[in-house]
Amino acid sequence: MSGKVDRELRARASRVIPGGMYGHQSVGLLPPHAPQFFERAEGAYLWDVDGNRYIDFMCGYGPNLFGYCNEQVDAAYRKQMSQIDVATGPTPRMVELAEAFVAMVTHADWAMFCKNGTDASSMALLTARAYRGRKKVLMASGAYHGAAPWCTPIPAGTVEDDRAHFIYYQYNDVKSLEDAVAQAGDDLAAIFASPFKHDVFVDQELPDAAYARRARELCDEKDALLIVDDIRAGFRIERNCSWNHLGVQPDLSTWGKAIANGHPISALLGNERAKEAASHIYVTGSFWFAGAAMAASLETLRLIRETDYLERTIALGDRLRAGLASIANTCDLDLSQTGPSQMPLVMITNEEGNCDFDRSTAFVDGMLAGGVYFHPFHNMFVGAAMTEADIDRTLEVAETVMKKLPDPVAA
Amino acid sequence: MSGKVDRELRARASRVIPGGMYGHQSVGLLPPHAPQFFERAEGAYLWDVDGNRYIDFMCGYGPNLFGYCNEQVDAAYRKQMSQIDVATGPTPRMVELAEAFVAMVTHADWAMFCKNGTDASSMALLTARAYRGRKKVLMASGAYHGAAPWCTPIPAGTVEDDRAHFIYYQYNDVKSLEDAVAQAGDDLAAIFASPFKHDVFVDQELPDAAYARRARELCDEKDALLIVDDIRAGFRIERNCSWNHLGVQPDLSTWGKAIANGHPISALLGNERAKEAASHIYVTGSFWFAGAAMAASLETLRLIRETDYLERTIALGDRLRAGLASIANTCDLDLSQTGPSQMPLVMITNEEGNCDFDRSTAFVDGMLAGGVYFHPFHNMFVGAAMTEADIDRTLEVAETVMKKLPDPVAA
Repeated sequence: MSGKVDRELRARASRVIPGGMYGHQSVGLLPPHAPQFFERAEGAYLWDVDGNRYIDFMCGYGPNLFGYCNEQVDAAYRKQMSQIDVATGPTPRMVELAEAFVAMVTHADWAMFCKNGTDASSMALLTARAYRGRKKVLMASGAYHGAAPWCTPIPAGTVEDDRAHFIYYQYNDVKSLEDAVAQAGDDLAAIFASPFKHDVFVDQELPDAAYARRARELCDEKDALLIVDDIRAGFRIERNCSWNHLGVQPDLSTWGKAIANGHPISALLGNERAKEAASHIYVTGSFWFAGAAMAASLETLRLIRETDYLERTIALGDRLRAGLASIANTCDLDLSQTGPSQMPLVMITNEEGNCDFDRSTAFVDGMLAGGVYFHPFHNMFVGAAMTEADIDRTLEVAETVMKKLPDPVAA
Repeated sequence: MSGKVDRELRARASRVIPGGMYGHQSVGLLPPHAPQFFERAEGAYLWDVDGNRYIDFMCGYGPNLFGYCNEQVDAAYRKQMSQIDVATGPTPRMVELAEAFVAMVTHADWAMFCKNGTDASSMALLTARAYRGRKKVLMASGAYHGAAPWCTPIPAGTVEDDRAHFIYYQYNDVKSLEDAVAQAGDDLAAIFASPFKHDVFVDQELPDAAYARRARELCDEKDALLIVDDIRAGFRIERNCSWNHLGVQPDLSTWGKAIANGHPISALLGNERAKEAASHIYVTGSFWFAGAAMAASLETLRLIRETDYLERTIALGDRLRAGLASIANTCDLDLSQTGPSQMPLVMITNEEGNCDFDRSTAFVDGMLAGGVYFHPFHNMFVGAAMTEADIDRTLEVAETVMKKLPDPVAA
């Protein structure tokens, strides 16, 4: 159970926050040991308001790449903040940051900065529709691209008109993609694609190269724009757009989460083909031109270029995956571990191979009680501040928990 | 003309940012002396990248209320950032901040926090439609409520369906409002209203109490929600929602800009009537639960409660308005000064009483050249870090500029 301080805060929150909490950080669907409120974060660790420490495999749902309170990134933020942050115009950091992204991301010739991942998604949508004045936009069924009226996964408060021109296809299914393109006819504006399938509640899927290449071809044939949504996975797969290793370059890519190691900034990147359309849309925000988050992002990009963070997070993820598989095997548990090892989704499965929600939840509850923040149905993140010792400690806790897991409920 | 460093940055920006800059901070429509890039901000002053200092009457387009780099607010931000900012869950600051807003804003029983003013507008829209499952939403023609597909003022990239259920009325016009409500029939979800008319390019208008009260009555009659958009004006008119002095309490109000003195946070506030609907919508963002901006907002709210900032900004605004009127009279210029004196729109008008854009632009260009950042068609902001000496210096510059203004172009 979450502790006394957490319970008191939840009671106060329920009075002044609808539902007590909202969005992806509500613990409403998480097991009992998940605390709602935290008081400290450093490196790979989080402390809840009752003083319990966790090795945090959610990394703030993605933003923490180089460790919480990273000294180098935060120093860059503080320095810029002491000179100029939000003001009546942008700082030179904005030009420097756009140049840094263009230099690092193969398909990108330009950048626009915003605050939320959802902002970047909406800007991609507007740019794609402005490009040739077309309406139809393809998205993979179940994919998350943000929480604006046109894309939020829960329909309360939206109207059918918000999605009048969206067509849904099955991720990694070339036939389904081709059918959706045919359905769009001469009115295809864009295809949205996640870099890999990282929907909640179901196994993750790495992208099939044939699917990615076909998406590119179809956009070229139809003069539509290909959009890779790298908000969640950006810089966790490559030091480039996440489809670069497949040889597929999108026209637009959306970024957020980790690009400033937790400081609030997101981005839309694009190629020359999309530049004029992007210059016609009207998008803005009170804090979009703020210098401090851009300075933090510049420092984060430097760390991405100059350190072995990527190889280390992959190695740590592999170590975690192999260790969990071995323990599960010993305990005769069916464990589904999907997605890139540094962005793992771990679920206990039943005899049919589907997620056993009760036992997955019990497993995660045990991990939380043992000081490891795991998630039962959302992909997790391995951070560069983690060490082999953190992984080994995680495996120790996992072994203890798996050995005590209740038997599956009889069907 | 903007200086050498600014010109070089603009040339670089044009290569890596669509249009060279975007949104409200693009200087594309501003006179030649408006710099695009800034390097330092402190108190009431801004320095551009060429070292020119400005008394800044834009205040970052609103966020700067207590002065740039305010020591107390920034210390609160830094302290929280050193403990925990963005993480896998919120901090206790979120509950404390919701409680602080509820204590200060009469109509508010709860709060939800986000990043952009547009986020708050979209959350108000979703909540209002979720409330009774209705679709029609009224907005004043020309009012700005954000830059999402459903409300951005420039249509590039949007589709007609994005605004399928919006009905537009004339601000301060009871008959027009009643007609729009009648047009909505049994499907009225909400009425959006700015606290006063602060559209660009035209004279500002203070709210007519009869209009505000009628909006409240109509929402009560129809069981719809009244939304006051206090993103721009919040805490610059009252230490409460800006219609409080009219005796009109909305169901929802949206906030942003100045609530953390420039740190990135915005909010939707609501009453009990709207709470359940707000708990059903799905809205979220990677950085919405971050503690540092909430700590900064708590300190900003304390300064709002405990200082005479409001009375001082009004007195400074009155001093500016009276001084400008006197100089214009001496120079035989027709000057339109509208809106609250602490959020002034200043335009030179022609014989018909309409804005003389050429001369307004020439006036603002002279002010910029003289070290005063004025705006030719957007309301400005008087900040609490300004002094009487700043106003007097502004008036000195204004007198010099007005005396040298070219004659109006003959019609």
